[in-house]
Amino acid sequence: MTPNPNIIYPTLLLDVRRCRKNIERLSKKFTEHGIAFRPHFKTHQSREIGGWFRDYGVDKITVSSLRMAAYFAHDGWDDITLAFPVNLLEVSAINALAERIRLNLVVEDHLVIKSLDRMLQYRVGIFIKVDTGYHRTGLESSEIEKIETCMSSVERSAHMHFMGFIAHAGHTYKAKNAGEINTIYRSSIRELASLRAHYRMRHPQSIVSFGDTPGASIVQDLDGIDEMRPGNFVFYDLMQVKLGSCLTDDIAVAMICPIVACHHERREYVIYGGGIHFSKEFTLRDDQDISYGSVVQFANGIWEPEQEIGYVSQLTQEHGVIKSDTPHMRPGQLVAVLPVHSCMTAQCLGGYIDQKGQRIDHFGGVKQ
Amino acid sequence: MTPNPNIIYPTLLLDVRRCRKNIERLSKKFTEHGIAFRPHFKTHQSREIGGWFRDYGVDKITVSSLRMAAYFAHDGWDDITLAFPVNLLEVSAINALAERIRLNLVVEDHLVIKSLDRMLQYRVGIFIKVDTGYHRTGLESSEIEKIETCMSSVERSAHMHFMGFIAHAGHTYKAKNAGEINTIYRSSIRELASLRAHYRMRHPQSIVSFGDTPGASIVQDLDGIDEMRPGNFVFYDLMQVKLGSCLTDDIAVAMICPIVACHHERREYVIYGGGIHFSKEFTLRDDQDISYGSVVQFANGIWEPEQEIGYVSQLTQEHGVIKSDTPHMRPGQLVAVLPVHSCMTAQCLGGYIDQKGQRIDHFGGVKQ
Repeated sequence: MTPNPNIIYPTLLLDVRRCRKNIERLSKKFTEHGIAFRPHFKTHQSREIGGWFRDYGVDKITVSSLRMAAYFAHDGWDDITLAFPVNLLEVSAINALAERIRLNLVVEDHLVIKSLDRMLQYRVGIFIKVDTGYHRTGLESSEIEKIETCMSSVERSAHMHFMGFIAHAGHTYKAKNAGEINTIYRSSIRELASLRAHYRMRHPQSIVSFGDTPGASIVQDLDGIDEMRPGNFVFYDLMQVKLGSCLTDDIAVAMICPIVACHHERREYVIYGGGIHFSKEFTLRDDQDISYGSVVQFANGIWEPEQEIGYVSQLTQEHGVIKSDTPHMRPGQLVAVLPVHSCMTAQCLGGYIDQKGQRIDHFGGVKQ
Repeated sequence: MTPNPNIIYPTLLLDVRRCRKNIERLSKKFTEHGIAFRPHFKTHQSREIGGWFRDYGVDKITVSSLRMAAYFAHDGWDDITLAFPVNLLEVSAINALAERIRLNLVVEDHLVIKSLDRMLQYRVGIFIKVDTGYHRTGLESSEIEKIETCMSSVERSAHMHFMGFIAHAGHTYKAKNAGEINTIYRSSIRELASLRAHYRMRHPQSIVSFGDTPGASIVQDLDGIDEMRPGNFVFYDLMQVKLGSCLTDDIAVAMICPIVACHHERREYVIYGGGIHFSKEFTLRDDQDISYGSVVQFANGIWEPEQEIGYVSQLTQEHGVIKSDTPHMRPGQLVAVLPVHSCMTAQCLGGYIDQKGQRIDHFGGVKQ
């Protein structure tokens, strides 16, 4: 009765071929540019998918929490950057990890550095966070006094080893086109390079770590960057298609949902699949309608990325409403929904299945 | 150093006294009105919190998925309504539950009823879903032919027992004030009562099941309703404060988050706490700024609901940005954030702690 009898409720289906292709594409690009690849694992949060990166020579990673770091350290990853401002309340977890692996932390406040230093028992690498225009975290490259104060505090510490400058160009997500993303990169790289030059004598080995999926996918001139840390590219999503980072055909995950009610007269179809599955991230369609996902044909375990048959126009806790002109929808049928933001959708589901029906792990770790 | 040494990362703190007060208030109200109380457990999803309802005489519940129903059936709840359109792909789970407990299902399509009937092995209660204006699911009360077709299919089934008409006034969430919510109730109740009157001879025991938190909290004239199914009231949240369903002081959960970076010059404070913790639900403040949560003082394990010191203006995966004029913020400090939508926030966290630091369970069950 169903194309894939293993799927009976909202399920995140992973296309392994597309996912590996996404990993391969950026691995090759960075190798060609002589740039180290330290992928951000917060998107997939999976030991199994993490393993696929090893096939392309990746041996160091980025994570967004200490609990996620511990999850991957347990799987043999021994060089991990936690790309999040140090949380002073988690120093025990920092020490526990730093005892076992190469752990790099990110700081932007000399008082935090001093507090951290007092509590550290093992050696950690330290990146100073630079704000190149996103204005979420970090010191601006012009705040040379603050940077110097941080640097001196790091240099005075017995446990801290200065690694370099780190930045995240999150503002590429607000760019309107590839041109704007290139512009953001040019100015960010200039700032970071000038900072590194300033400290070259004191820290000849220091690096510039940068990267986000839009820039990593689109920008060709990466001179001045030593290491890239994109994460989302492993799956991509509708947001990235809109930014020009990928094609719809590159999206490697789709939520498979059963239709549970049909309202043909208003072209609306209710799916089992809501805000707790997709997250409530939305994008604006060309007609300015809100979309929580693009609905595509799904048959025999395969979705057809180019055959959009509707979009998710409403999401409540477990219900989704599809707007579609396709007259063939019926209760019990499965449809595939390409996600707006795959990182959030993967987090919601906390797991995947591949096209053979095998489960793939996800850390899913914010649970109490 | 911290007010509550048990909290080191984003943690959903439950105020048991406020929560029990919320349960007590509606239990009393429904008892006084002679209305059965079948609370929706999708908000808290907790066996422990569910147990508190028993103290107020509640012995039947509502859930939003079969997996959630199984979670509570395992805890001794033996009269459960699944307030979601029947998903034909989950008939095995329906049969497994219907064998053990009184299970009520919700239908709106005679083809679904017929398919379901062929696969049912045990007796289930059936509610016909009526759309009283929310336009998400259900048949409009004027679609008398469709309703009759559904009714006949139910009556012909050996396993189905007609329970009555069920509706959810989700459009109260879009109401601007209590007056509009009262108006929605008056017209909805009239429609449902007229349907029941129409079928009274054939189904003298049938009931009208209704209810949502704004209506349950605000509306006083509930004549014509036999059963109410609100869920959110157990915690309430900022959305409900805005609708007038509750006071800020009634909100029974707050997310406790560490500050990890301070940008005093732009009055911004970065917290560990992002979209994966709060969900991305937002509300508009009086000044039309987007808010993902209201930040209040937190000390000695207690938050001060009336002392707002800022609001969450941005959320990414694990970062939140607070806008605040309070000059005393420092890294390592904990703040409390009242959630915009507590159902989603509880789902994200998948657990609570109470003010004694004891863990409280949450089903959290969409995981693969």
